[in-house]
Amino acid sequence: MQTLGAKSAADLDKELMSEDGGFTIDQLMELAGLSVAEAVYKVHPPSKGKNVLITAGPGNNGGDGLVCARHLHHFGYTPRIYYPKPTKAAIFTGLQKQLNHLHIPFLTSLEEFTSALASSDLVIDALFGFSFKPPVRAPFDTVLSAIIDSKKPVLAVDIPSSWDVEGGPPEQGQLGSEFMPTYLISLTAAKPCVQWFKGERHFIGGRFLSADVAGKYGLDVPPYEGVDQIAEVPVDVSVEKL
Amino acid sequence: MQTLGAKSAADLDKELMSEDGGFTIDQLMELAGLSVAEAVYKVHPPSKGKNVLITAGPGNNGGDGLVCARHLHHFGYTPRIYYPKPTKAAIFTGLQKQLNHLHIPFLTSLEEFTSALASSDLVIDALFGFSFKPPVRAPFDTVLSAIIDSKKPVLAVDIPSSWDVEGGPPEQGQLGSEFMPTYLISLTAAKPCVQWFKGERHFIGGRFLSADVAGKYGLDVPPYEGVDQIAEVPVDVSVEKL
Repeated sequence: MQTLGAKSAADLDKELMSEDGGFTIDQLMELAGLSVAEAVYKVHPPSKGKNVLITAGPGNNGGDGLVCARHLHHFGYTPRIYYPKPTKAAIFTGLQKQLNHLHIPFLTSLEEFTSALASSDLVIDALFGFSFKPPVRAPFDTVLSAIIDSKKPVLAVDIPSSWDVEGGPPEQGQLGSEFMPTYLISLTAAKPCVQWFKGERHFIGGRFLSADVAGKYGLDVPPYEGVDQIAEVPVDVSVEKL
Repeated sequence: MQTLGAKSAADLDKELMSEDGGFTIDQLMELAGLSVAEAVYKVHPPSKGKNVLITAGPGNNGGDGLVCARHLHHFGYTPRIYYPKPTKAAIFTGLQKQLNHLHIPFLTSLEEFTSALASSDLVIDALFGFSFKPPVRAPFDTVLSAIIDSKKPVLAVDIPSSWDVEGGPPEQGQLGSEFMPTYLISLTAAKPCVQWFKGERHFIGGRFLSADVAGKYGLDVPPYEGVDQIAEVPVDVSVEKL
């Protein structure tokens, strides 16, 4: 499987949103978040339980989680969000307002989060993406520990939080060394750390990549079908870093 | 069927994109254009012919058409676009750049448009939306006449171009009086002119409306299913203007 290393992933994002690329963060985040919500529907339709807990970090990975929460609501779920470090940029405050209009609860304390976690059917890990640098800082260390300890099924957005985009899980004894989400959705392309992913299902999302840009980065456009915003790909693969 | 009159439709758009509503035009146009592309897939899957001609007007209706073209490309179609009056605002120039990267042709003359029309399987009418005021001005009069004369199946975006959002088709003898698209996708909610729509299928798109805002405007949230961005609704209905 072709994967995008840390620098390539950052370059690709930058290129899409450049003057020449023509995309805005609003458009890309909308499609990314929608693809996460479609992955949720695929692995865990509302008939299996509607309580989805979205844990959102301070960056774009968290923004993808907020967009996902909106779509999950419209898909018939009852999402709840833990977003302890809200970002001030307009797109993030706008997304929060949209979610307020849908009466999607933002949990306001670790206690509320812990209680919501206990009654959740599925957890979305939208804490950190490909630009994460260890260690996991407070309060996200506590959040991630609680998610791991809960043994709830987890869908990780882009990379499992605490993992290094290229190096995979942290060393034994460190927070996250035992973190293995049940599901993973890689955004735009898989990252090298997928070689350590031993969960049940892996999806690629973000159906906006041109063949030209994909080719430039040595990627194939994933095998999307119909109007799907996600494509399922095999788990347990050897990877090539681009 | 509950429908949104001209003023209500404008107010609703304004409310969604207000400081309090939290949406950006980028987000709403992305979801609207995606819903149009999903409607295309529903009425005319690529197996029935991939040549889709998008005619795009100078306003937001045209922008929905541009977003639709991008998704159609990713869905396996070979879209072509006639966009004779490109708009300078950033979102429109950005969308054009995205489409250039996909090598989607922009037809550059009426002759090219006419020739493309003849070989098209389906035409998207994204010329004018709910804020249209007659008459249809050049060059769109020629474009619309050619579309009507071609007798090609047409999917109209939001309202059939040349129709009045509340009053329906123009009077006999005027351009558009005989215009009846095969398919219609109403965005956010149907408009009163749907009472004159006697085509084959009618969809609602734009799965982002909160129950609160819908309620405020006297609308029900349409019966979306699964992860669909469109809901099919009956044709030939009596309407209530809100």
